[in-house]
Amino acid sequence: MLNPYTEPLHPGLWKMLTVAMCVALVGCLQAQELRGHVSIVLLGATGDLAKKYLWQGLFQLYLDEVGKDHSFSFHGAALTAPEQGWKLMAKALESLSCPSDMAPSHCAELKDQFLRLSQYRQLKTAEDYRTLSKDIEAQVKQEDLREAGRIFYFSVPPFAYVDIARNINSSCRPGPGAWLRVVFEKPFGHDHLSAQQLATELGSFFQEEEMYRVDHYLGKQAVAQILPFRDQNRKALDGLWNRHHVERVEIIMKETVDAEGRISFYEEYGVIRDVLQNHLTEILMLVAMELPLNVSSSAAVLQHKLEAFRGLRGLNKGSAVVGQYQAYSAQARRELQKPEGFHSLTPTFAGVLVHVDSLRWEGVPFTLMSGKALDERVGYVRVLFKNQAFCIQHERHWAPEQSPCLPRQIIFHIGHGELSHPAILVSRNLFRPSLPAHSWAEVQERPGLRVLGRPLSDFYAYSPLRERDAYSILLSHIFHGRKESFITTENLLASWDFWTPLLDSLAHEVPRLYPGGADTGCLLDLELNGGHLSFSQQQPEQLVPGPGSAPKPSDFQVLRARYRESPLISAWPEELISRLASDIEASALQAVQHFGKFHLALSGGSSPIALFQQLAMGHYSFPWAHTHLWLVDERCVPLSDPDSNFQGLQAHLLQHIRLPYYNIHPMPVHLHQRLCAEEDQGAQTYAGEISALVANSSFDLVLLGMGTDGHTASLFPQSPTGLDGEQLVVLTQSPFRPHQRMSLSLPLINRAKKVAVLVMGRTKRDITMLVSRVGQEPRKWPISGVLPSSGQLVWYMDYEAFLG
Amino acid sequence: MLNPYTEPLHPGLWKMLTVAMCVALVGCLQAQELRGHVSIVLLGATGDLAKKYLWQGLFQLYLDEVGKDHSFSFHGAALTAPEQGWKLMAKALESLSCPSDMAPSHCAELKDQFLRLSQYRQLKTAEDYRTLSKDIEAQVKQEDLREAGRIFYFSVPPFAYVDIARNINSSCRPGPGAWLRVVFEKPFGHDHLSAQQLATELGSFFQEEEMYRVDHYLGKQAVAQILPFRDQNRKALDGLWNRHHVERVEIIMKETVDAEGRISFYEEYGVIRDVLQNHLTEILMLVAMELPLNVSSSAAVLQHKLEAFRGLRGLNKGSAVVGQYQAYSAQARRELQKPEGFHSLTPTFAGVLVHVDSLRWEGVPFTLMSGKALDERVGYVRVLFKNQAFCIQHERHWAPEQSPCLPRQIIFHIGHGELSHPAILVSRNLFRPSLPAHSWAEVQERPGLRVLGRPLSDFYAYSPLRERDAYSILLSHIFHGRKESFITTENLLASWDFWTPLLDSLAHEVPRLYPGGADTGCLLDLELNGGHLSFSQQQPEQLVPGPGSAPKPSDFQVLRARYRESPLISAWPEELISRLASDIEASALQAVQHFGKFHLALSGGSSPIALFQQLAMGHYSFPWAHTHLWLVDERCVPLSDPDSNFQGLQAHLLQHIRLPYYNIHPMPVHLHQRLCAEEDQGAQTYAGEISALVANSSFDLVLLGMGTDGHTASLFPQSPTGLDGEQLVVLTQSPFRPHQRMSLSLPLINRAKKVAVLVMGRTKRDITMLVSRVGQEPRKWPISGVLPSSGQLVWYMDYEAFLG
Repeated sequence: MLNPYTEPLHPGLWKMLTVAMCVALVGCLQAQELRGHVSIVLLGATGDLAKKYLWQGLFQLYLDEVGKDHSFSFHGAALTAPEQGWKLMAKALESLSCPSDMAPSHCAELKDQFLRLSQYRQLKTAEDYRTLSKDIEAQVKQEDLREAGRIFYFSVPPFAYVDIARNINSSCRPGPGAWLRVVFEKPFGHDHLSAQQLATELGSFFQEEEMYRVDHYLGKQAVAQILPFRDQNRKALDGLWNRHHVERVEIIMKETVDAEGRISFYEEYGVIRDVLQNHLTEILMLVAMELPLNVSSSAAVLQHKLEAFRGLRGLNKGSAVVGQYQAYSAQARRELQKPEGFHSLTPTFAGVLVHVDSLRWEGVPFTLMSGKALDERVGYVRVLFKNQAFCIQHERHWAPEQSPCLPRQIIFHIGHGELSHPAILVSRNLFRPSLPAHSWAEVQERPGLRVLGRPLSDFYAYSPLRERDAYSILLSHIFHGRKESFITTENLLASWDFWTPLLDSLAHEVPRLYPGGADTGCLLDLELNGGHLSFSQQQPEQLVPGPGSAPKPSDFQVLRARYRESPLISAWPEELISRLASDIEASALQAVQHFGKFHLALSGGSSPIALFQQLAMGHYSFPWAHTHLWLVDERCVPLSDPDSNFQGLQAHLLQHIRLPYYNIHPMPVHLHQRLCAEEDQGAQTYAGEISALVANSSFDLVLLGMGTDGHTASLFPQSPTGLDGEQLVVLTQSPFRPHQRMSLSLPLINRAKKVAVLVMGRTKRDITMLVSRVGQEPRKWPISGVLPSSGQLVWYMDYEAFLG
Repeated sequence: MLNPYTEPLHPGLWKMLTVAMCVALVGCLQAQELRGHVSIVLLGATGDLAKKYLWQGLFQLYLDEVGKDHSFSFHGAALTAPEQGWKLMAKALESLSCPSDMAPSHCAELKDQFLRLSQYRQLKTAEDYRTLSKDIEAQVKQEDLREAGRIFYFSVPPFAYVDIARNINSSCRPGPGAWLRVVFEKPFGHDHLSAQQLATELGSFFQEEEMYRVDHYLGKQAVAQILPFRDQNRKALDGLWNRHHVERVEIIMKETVDAEGRISFYEEYGVIRDVLQNHLTEILMLVAMELPLNVSSSAAVLQHKLEAFRGLRGLNKGSAVVGQYQAYSAQARRELQKPEGFHSLTPTFAGVLVHVDSLRWEGVPFTLMSGKALDERVGYVRVLFKNQAFCIQHERHWAPEQSPCLPRQIIFHIGHGELSHPAILVSRNLFRPSLPAHSWAEVQERPGLRVLGRPLSDFYAYSPLRERDAYSILLSHIFHGRKESFITTENLLASWDFWTPLLDSLAHEVPRLYPGGADTGCLLDLELNGGHLSFSQQQPEQLVPGPGSAPKPSDFQVLRARYRESPLISAWPEELISRLASDIEASALQAVQHFGKFHLALSGGSSPIALFQQLAMGHYSFPWAHTHLWLVDERCVPLSDPDSNFQGLQAHLLQHIRLPYYNIHPMPVHLHQRLCAEEDQGAQTYAGEISALVANSSFDLVLLGMGTDGHTASLFPQSPTGLDGEQLVVLTQSPFRPHQRMSLSLPLINRAKKVAVLVMGRTKRDITMLVSRVGQEPRKWPISGVLPSSGQLVWYMDYEAFLG
C-alpha cells in the first residue's frame, strides 16, 4: 500500500468519539460493540471513469457517512506499479470537491481525512490479492474494529472481469459476519448468449446478492425519483397511470456528440446496445411496472420489474428504425484502418416502438429513441395523457395554464435540454405533485423558457435542491445494500431476451444516413402505425446501396392463373395475405347477409398467423358476432399447449376480436382428462356439433394448407382414415410429433362452399410443382383429393412457393 | 285557385321546344311521349318556414329544372281564405332571389315564369282536397302533359298532420304511373312512444317510400358532403378512419341566441330533443357508419346507417351533463305565466358522450354538444387523429404547417364561427383531399384567421363555390327521390330508441346553471372519464336546490360488523362493489402466488354486473391469465340466450379482459342439442371437470347472491337436490322461469376457501332481517346452509339491503 498522507486517526479516538456521541442518543446499545469497518477497493483506480466520477463518488460517500456507524478505507488498485499508480491516482484525488454549501475550511479538513484513508496498490498477481486481504484484516484488528464488509468496484474492461473475480473469490472474501459486494460496469455482454456466459462465469465466483451491476442511469436523480414519485402520488396517479388515460410514453436520450474517438467500441455495439438495451429499458420498466405496495422493499421492486419484463411484447424488424450520421463510416475507416470501400452498418440512431401487453398498458405506445450527432443534448421520459376534456368556450376564454384542454403531461427531465438540470414536471391541469421537501424544491420561474414545446409556467416543476452525480448516488446505494438500483442477473437476461431478436433482425439492415445536427430536418421523424414504427418521410436517395437487392413487391403484379384447373392467386406474401383476408371477409359478409351466419374452418400452422393478424387488425366490418370458428385439424394436446392449433388461433386472432364464446368450436381432443381416446368419441362429438349447427355440414369456407409431403388438414399420405368414407371427423396419425391428430375428413372438406388453400414459402416449391402434375390421388397426396363437390376451390400461393 | 299572374305558357309551345331540342340530342326517344308534370303543394305556405326558406327553395328547384324533363305547378296552401292567403303568400314570393351570378334581366324573367306557375288555395275541407286533385288533373290534361308526381310539403304543426294526411290519402293521390311524396318537418314525436304512434298513424296513410322526413341539417352543404367526401377520399381514409388513428370526434352546435320568445315550444323539448336527437345524431351516423361500396345507392346508405344505430352503446345518466342559462326560468315564468316560485328543469345545454361498439370505433369517444346562450355561434364536426408521429428534432426545426407532429384533424365546418361559411378542412400533414371541382374550391388565405385553435394555413380548406341553403338542397333531393337525405321510420325509431332512456333518466335532473355568453367561463367544460362524462369543474354553489336530497355516500363510513357470525362489509353500492372487487383481486393474487392459479366461481343475476364491470375496467393487475372462471349456477337455456348467466358474464366481463378460452368453464347445460337432459349427464361432467382441475374441489372463491325467498345459487327452498348429499353439481327446479337450472351443491360450495355473498337493494331488506335471525335451516332458507367447513364466509351488503 502506498499513501504519503497516511497517518491514520488513532483508533481509540474514534471509539471515544462514538461513546461520547451515544450518551445523548437512543438505541446505541450495539454501538458498544466494535465499530464496523468497510473497505472499498476501486479496481481501475487510475482509469477515466474513476477520475471523472468514482473517486468523487467515494469522497461523497465518505462525507455522507463520516461520523456514522462505520469507518472506511479506500484502496485504489490497478495493474500499474505502485509509484506510478499512486501518482496517477493522486491526480484524481486532488480535484475532489465538496458540496457548494460547505465551508472551505471544513472541506479541506474532510478532504485531508479522506486522503489519509485512501491508498494505492498494485493488484496483478494472486499474491497481491492475498496481501490486500491480509492488510485489511490487519488494519481492522490493529484499529480495534469489526469488519463489516468489502466493496470491490470493477472499473476495468470486461475481459479482465473473470481473472479478478477469481482472485477476489479465492483470496479476498471477508470473514464470517461481513459482507462482500462486487460492482460491475457495463457492457454486460453483447447479446443474450454472451451475457448469459458472463453471468454464468461471474456466478461461479459470487452469489447473486453479492453482485451489483451498475446502470448509472438508475442513479440519475430524475430517474431514481420515478418510483418514489409514483408512490408518493399514488392517489392522484391511481386513476391516470393506465391505457385509459395515457396516450403515449416517450423515453428519449439525444446527444449532440458523435462517436469519434470511440469507434472501436462503438462499431461493435451501436446505439441500441449502448443506450436502449440498458438505460432506456430500465427507465421503461420504472414507468411501466406495477407499483409494489412497499417501494422501499428491494425484493418487491425487483420482482415487479421482472414481471414487467415478461409483459413486453416481442420486438421485430417493424418495431424499429435505425440511422447513422453521415460522417460515421469515414470516421470508422480512419479509426479502424479500414479500406476505402468500407461502409459500416452500425446504427448511431434508433427509434423503437415498445408495447406492454398488460391490461394497464395494452395499446399504449412507448417510444424509445436515442441518437448521436442530433440537434440537441437532452434526456427525458414523458408521459403524455389523452386530452379527455372538451372546453365549451372559444379558446380565447380558456383559463391560462390550467385549462383542462391544454396538453397534460408528466415529464421526468433527466438532464441537459433547455432546462439544463434534472427536474420533474407535472402539467398544472393534472395535479400538484408531492415530492420530498427535504431534497426537491419548486423550480424558479424563468420567463420565456419552454420545456418540450410548452412554457415552463404550464407546469408544477420541481428539481433537486442539490444536484448529485449518478455515481455518488449509486455508491451510496451499494454501501446501503439497496439492490433495487442495480441490474440483477434475471433482469439483465430478461432485457437481452427482449432485445436480442431485434438486434439479430437488424444486423444486416442499412441504416438511414442523416447529416447530423440541425441539418437532419425531418429525416428521422418517426411514425407509429398499427404496432409498427417507420420513418415518416419516404427514404430519400440512399447514399450507400444495401447488400443484395431482391426484386421489390411492386416489381410484380398479382398473378391470376389456374392451378390444378382451379383459380390461382399468386402474389408477394403481404399482398397475398391481404387478398385472402379480403376474400374471406367478402365470403363472410355474403354468408351473413343470406344466412345470418358464417361458418369458417381454419387450419393451424405458421402460414395462417399473418392472416389471423390481418383479419384481427385490418378488417373492421368483419361480421365476427355472426361468425362461427371451427378447426380443420388439431394436435392431441391440451388446448392450452403451445403446440395446439387452437392456441395459435387464440393468440393471434381470438384475443383481438369479439367473437362470442359459444361461436368458438375447438376440437374436443381433451376429454375426461385424456387426449384423443377412441372411447371418448371426440371425433363423433365434433361431427355431431357440425351436423347440428352447420347446414348440410357444408362450411362456408375451409382454409387449408399443404405440407411438403402433400398432406393437408391432418390427413397424411396413406392415412387409413379420413381420405374417404362416411366419417366427417377422424383421428389420424402424423409422421411428425405430436403424432396423434384429429382432422376433418376429405369428404367433409369437399362439402364446403369454398375451400382456400394457402401455400407459402420456398420449401413448398417442390411439392407445388409435383402436385401441379398429378391427378386425384389422395392416398399418395391427400391435397390432391381436395375438390369441393359443388363448391369452389381457390389456391393462394406466394411467389416463393409458386415460382421458387 | 288564385293567381293574378296566371297566363300559362301555351302547351303546344313547350312541346315544340322539346322536339326542337331533341333533334340534336341522343336518347330523346321517350321525349316524344308526353312531357311529365310535377305538382308541388306547400301546406302552410304563409308560415315562417315557408317565407324564410321553402318558397326560395322551390324557386331554386325551378331554376335548376326549368327546361329539363318536367314542367311544374306550385300550390301554396293554408287554412286562410283565398284573398287573404294569396296576399300573405305573394309577400313571400316578392323577395325571391336568383344566384348572384345570374343576370338581373334573366332573373326577372324566370321569377315571372315562376310566379305564373304558382297559385294559392285554401285547403280546409275534404272538398278542398278533392278540388285540388281535380284541378291538377284538369291542368295536366289541358296542357297535354303526363302527370309524373305530386309533392305535399307539410310545413304545419304536427297536430295537423293526421287530418291532412287522411285527406291527401283519400283524395289527392295521383293516378297510376305517377308518384306521391309527402314531406314532414320535425318534431317527429317527443320520445320513442309518441314517435312510434305518429309513425303508425302516418303509416296508415302512406307507404314508407312516399314519406320524406326532413332533418334540414342533412341538407347543409358541409353535412351533405360527409359521405361523398369519405367516398372520394377512400384511399387516404381507409387506414385512418378507425380507432387506431382517431382520437376522438366532436359534433358541435353552439348558439348565442337563447330561447326567449320560443319558450312554450322549448320548455317541452329542451336541447336534446331540439338538436341532439336529430341533427347531431344524424351527423354522427354519417361519420360513424360503414361506408357502402356505392354511396349513391339510397338503399345501401340507409341500410348502413341503420346498422350504425345498432352499434351505438346505450346511454345512461353518466353519459350526459346538462345545463340551463340563468335567465331561462324567468323567461319561462313570463312566457308561460308561471308563478314566482317556478323553476324549469329543461336543459338549454347538453354534452353527451357516445360510444360506438364496433371494431372500427371501439373506445373512440364521440362528444355531442349543443347549447343556447353560449359565447359564439358555430357548428362543426371535428375528427381528431391521434398524434402518432414523433419528431426527432427540437420544435424550432419542425416544417411549418406540415410537420407530422402538429395536430391532425378533419373538420366539416357547418357554418358560422370564425370561418363564417361551410367548409371542409383537412390538416396539411394528413393528405390533400379530393373534392368535386365543379362545386367546391379552395378557400382563399385570410391572414390571422384561426379555425378551432389552428391557423387556417394549417389546412387544405375547401368551401362550396356557391353557398346554398339546406332547404333548396333538400327540395332538390325530394324531387329526385334521393331518400338517403331523409329520415326513414326505422331510422327515426332507432334514434328515439337510443335517446329515450337518457331523456327519461334526466327528466328530474337539475341542470347546472350558467350565466351565458363569455361569462360562462369554464363552468360547462366537459371531462371524459372511463366512458362517463362530467363537468370538469366541481359544482359551484347551486342556485336551485335539487328535488329531495338523500344522504350522500360520504355521510357514511364503511360499516364493519358481523352478520350470522361472519364478517359483514356494508357500504353504499359503489363503494361496496369496489371493496368486493379489491378483495377478490387480493384473493386472486394470493392464490396465484401460492398455487399458480385462481379458481373463481361466479353467480349470475343483476347485482354482480357492476362487479364484473369494476373488475374488467379497474383492476389492471388482476392475474386473469391464471384465473379459471366457473359458474355457480346456470339456467337451462343455450349459452347465447340473453337469459343465460354465462351471457351476462360474457357481456360484462369476458369481452373486456384477456382470459384464455380454456380457463372459461360454462356449465354444460346444452349438450347434444338438448337442455339439461338427465341422460346427457351435464351435471356429472361439470363435477368431473371441477374434480380434475380444482384441487380438492375447493374453489378459491365462490361468489353467491341471496334471493328474496332465501335461495342462493340455484338452490331453492325445499329443493330435493343440492342441499346435502354427495353430488357436487345438481339439476334443480326454480319457481321462476326458466324453471330448469344447474347449480353447484351446498356441500361443494362449503368446500370453498372463501365464500362471498353479495346482497344489494331495498327489496332484500326483509329476507336480510329474517335470515339474520334463523339458524342453519337450508331446507327452508338455502342461504342459511352456506358455511364453509374450513373456509371463510364474508357478507357484502349495501346499506339499502342492510339498513332498509
